[in-house]
Amino acid sequence: MIRLIQIDPRDNVAIVTENAPKGTKLENLVLLQDIPQGHKVALMKLQKGAKVIRYGVILGFLLEDVEAGSWINEKMLELPELPPLDSLSYAQGDKVVLPKPVMTTFEGFDNGPEAYAGTRNLLAITTTVQCVSGVVDQLVSQIRSKLLPKYPNVDEVVAINHAYGCGVAINAPDAVIPIRSIRNIMRNPNFGGEIMVVGLGCEKLTVDMLLPPEEINEENVLMLQDYPGYASMMEALLTMAETKLQALNKRKRVTLPLSKLCIGMQCGGSDAFSGITANPSAGYASDLLVSGGATVMFSEVTEIRDGVHLLALRCVDKEARDKLVSEIAWYDAYLAKGEVDRSANPTPGNKKGGLSNIVEKAMGSIVKSGRAPIVEVLGPGERPTKKGLIFAATPASDIVCGPSQLASGITLQVFMTGRGTPYGLAEAPVIKVSSRNDMQKQWNDLIDFNAGGIATGEESVEEAGARLFNLILEVASGRKKPYAEEFKLNNFLCFFNPAPIT
Amino acid sequence: MIRLIQIDPRDNVAIVTENAPKGTKLENLVLLQDIPQGHKVALMKLQKGAKVIRYGVILGFLLEDVEAGSWINEKMLELPELPPLDSLSYAQGDKVVLPKPVMTTFEGFDNGPEAYAGTRNLLAITTTVQCVSGVVDQLVSQIRSKLLPKYPNVDEVVAINHAYGCGVAINAPDAVIPIRSIRNIMRNPNFGGEIMVVGLGCEKLTVDMLLPPEEINEENVLMLQDYPGYASMMEALLTMAETKLQALNKRKRVTLPLSKLCIGMQCGGSDAFSGITANPSAGYASDLLVSGGATVMFSEVTEIRDGVHLLALRCVDKEARDKLVSEIAWYDAYLAKGEVDRSANPTPGNKKGGLSNIVEKAMGSIVKSGRAPIVEVLGPGERPTKKGLIFAATPASDIVCGPSQLASGITLQVFMTGRGTPYGLAEAPVIKVSSRNDMQKQWNDLIDFNAGGIATGEESVEEAGARLFNLILEVASGRKKPYAEEFKLNNFLCFFNPAPIT
Repeated sequence: MIRLIQIDPRDNVAIVTENAPKGTKLENLVLLQDIPQGHKVALMKLQKGAKVIRYGVILGFLLEDVEAGSWINEKMLELPELPPLDSLSYAQGDKVVLPKPVMTTFEGFDNGPEAYAGTRNLLAITTTVQCVSGVVDQLVSQIRSKLLPKYPNVDEVVAINHAYGCGVAINAPDAVIPIRSIRNIMRNPNFGGEIMVVGLGCEKLTVDMLLPPEEINEENVLMLQDYPGYASMMEALLTMAETKLQALNKRKRVTLPLSKLCIGMQCGGSDAFSGITANPSAGYASDLLVSGGATVMFSEVTEIRDGVHLLALRCVDKEARDKLVSEIAWYDAYLAKGEVDRSANPTPGNKKGGLSNIVEKAMGSIVKSGRAPIVEVLGPGERPTKKGLIFAATPASDIVCGPSQLASGITLQVFMTGRGTPYGLAEAPVIKVSSRNDMQKQWNDLIDFNAGGIATGEESVEEAGARLFNLILEVASGRKKPYAEEFKLNNFLCFFNPAPIT
Repeated sequence: MIRLIQIDPRDNVAIVTENAPKGTKLENLVLLQDIPQGHKVALMKLQKGAKVIRYGVILGFLLEDVEAGSWINEKMLELPELPPLDSLSYAQGDKVVLPKPVMTTFEGFDNGPEAYAGTRNLLAITTTVQCVSGVVDQLVSQIRSKLLPKYPNVDEVVAINHAYGCGVAINAPDAVIPIRSIRNIMRNPNFGGEIMVVGLGCEKLTVDMLLPPEEINEENVLMLQDYPGYASMMEALLTMAETKLQALNKRKRVTLPLSKLCIGMQCGGSDAFSGITANPSAGYASDLLVSGGATVMFSEVTEIRDGVHLLALRCVDKEARDKLVSEIAWYDAYLAKGEVDRSANPTPGNKKGGLSNIVEKAMGSIVKSGRAPIVEVLGPGERPTKKGLIFAATPASDIVCGPSQLASGITLQVFMTGRGTPYGLAEAPVIKVSSRNDMQKQWNDLIDFNAGGIATGEESVEEAGARLFNLILEVASGRKKPYAEEFKLNNFLCFFNPAPIT
């Protein structure tokens, strides 16, 4: 049954839940054209220049007159002005009362009193420079076949290969971003504190930029140029890896409070349903997690840019608001240097899925953060100092946001999708949430959780959110593997490097 | 025996061929300090502000007075001004008489009358977007185990995975670079004209940006969102791959003229010997190849920047000179946007190896292009229209230059190194050339060719160059595998994307 979904009483458009042919009668409306699933229909006659309102906010201004029942698509809207960044109000979010979770513990790998716990027990091999990645790939393959079977408590071995480390302007102002991302990803709780760094010996990203002096030793760092040839370096690397595996193999899951859990939220391949099904249920699950003491990060600067004032209101203090403003201002300038702006974000798939522009995409994207106050704002790849809901200001690109959140310490990611992507991370399990029943039906061996029932009225946001919360804890506790983990569908790590290549 | 090497009679410095202790007597000189291998010693007393000259050019200006026999290191030099880009003379290189090669054919995989031939017979699976890379990695692994053994004439299957395709500003001016790189790499002669593109379905890099309409069909393109789930897409992908393997398996090596060969030259991890051993022998091999009708590309903009006037002189016409100037000017502006300049290029390893600054590195780098005239200049990832020596203006970063040259069509790369790197490419064999005997001794299962004998007087540049020419043809003809190919040490593809991430 085709339904019409209006999100906010102020909205003058609604979306159709199925492909709706011309002439379809929906409530008081007769459709004047065929309207594709998820696309917007005008609820009233609107004149050229009129505000088109969804989520209670202005998506844009009409470029032509439309009648009630008309399709409103991406070609018919002019983007509103960018919300200004000066004098944004803050600290309005504390009053929110969050829902209480039924469960406040999970089974994780403890990393000591101060640290977040792991949801997996992984041997991570960090590289200082791209030159060594061929050797490290062969090493990982040998560890998998020769060593891993002897250490049953270790889930996997992962290579932290990346495109940074040399051939880059290492002293450029923006080089701080990739450098801290690599420095911090080593500390991801899923790697259990075991440091194994493989370098070359002549690279720009020297080991002292990644490790404190007391950790730079033969146990943790191996430079290929110190070894007489390939056979010799592989032998030394295998010996080093085995020592680390022995240490990791002693780790066991224990029952831990949710305050030991740090997860990330991301969306990719969004459609118009993302903002009313997948993302709100993720937001509700996030509220349950935060209310239970966990840390939840959300990201994607270009997808919150048009709602920055809404996020500022939820920042708990001036410090968080100021950091939010400075990160967004940096990103505005970064896009301007490349002669684009936030309107460069939406994809053909987004538009096909009914998202007319970046404002509509942003409003749907922000709801994945739920209603909790924002306790801290991080630059790309920075580590948190507070627990609760955190905005980690990364690019929206899936494979750039993922590694950035991993560097910030997430041990699990929830990934909402409307169009569908087989995205996955080797470093942390990824739960894929679909926005539409059709999506889940089509990709039933790739989608782990379907929030589409919210659009068809089968389920409330709260019900779906509580189900998702349970699944997150199942996966975090190692009782369930998401499909991407099962099939080893892993995207490589693309650390954000806004500084020049040389 | 420690030797002193002066390159040009105008030079007022020379380098020592071994670590040389204070007090060592070399020709008329007594060393006033311990001087590390490859580092410069003053041949005469020089005052603060004096020009330090090597390769007959000014490396920089002294920041302090030095006596004859003193060590001159990177901390003692002020960089000279950047050579201007306006009114550069050109067309002075035609008069050069190149050496004649003893052999003018090789055994390659023919690709028709107009095209370069392959040196390998590979199935390449190109991706439109990073989201599909996890699936394609699993696919490649299944093809290797299930299909490849049935097609003995196919050497390997390679995934053209990359970080581009979505989450990027696809309409930014600089987006042309990654887009054409991906479009062109598909046409690499080592892939035998077989097109296999895997996309998602909602990405920004749509298939029509990569293929002409007549090639967009079910035989060549598969979009994952069109398939009901993972098992189904893998089945379809394996079927598609098998059809391509059947076609590729029919290819056999045939004797071809050198005009069908297109190779690339690159250096990485350079030292002060690179410019007097490895790179000049590569330059001589390049002259033999070009003289025999082959196409040779060299690259690395920041490493020719200080010698741009010398390259301009060798451009055969105004068109090549103008393209050289526009590519370099673009790169100057690109670096300036990131608040750096060409001095950001040298690495700690370069400096340890005796290269004081980018001028010295550039002079040693340029000699790998030999003496042939430059027939054409390409932007990063562009395909050539002429045969002969070509400057392909790519970044100097090894893993960015490699994919760019592959997109431009190289089927083999010669890689000179002083400090040592295990660099390799899955898409084309890479011959690694060491600049020092020590390097080759240390990494005898990674270095394919040693040019160090030039520094110790065991071999002339011409002798080493002729030997290298022979090895290039051996490898191109499939009679020999370089170590990186043997051990499958392959760097991933990092296409140059100077445009913003969104």
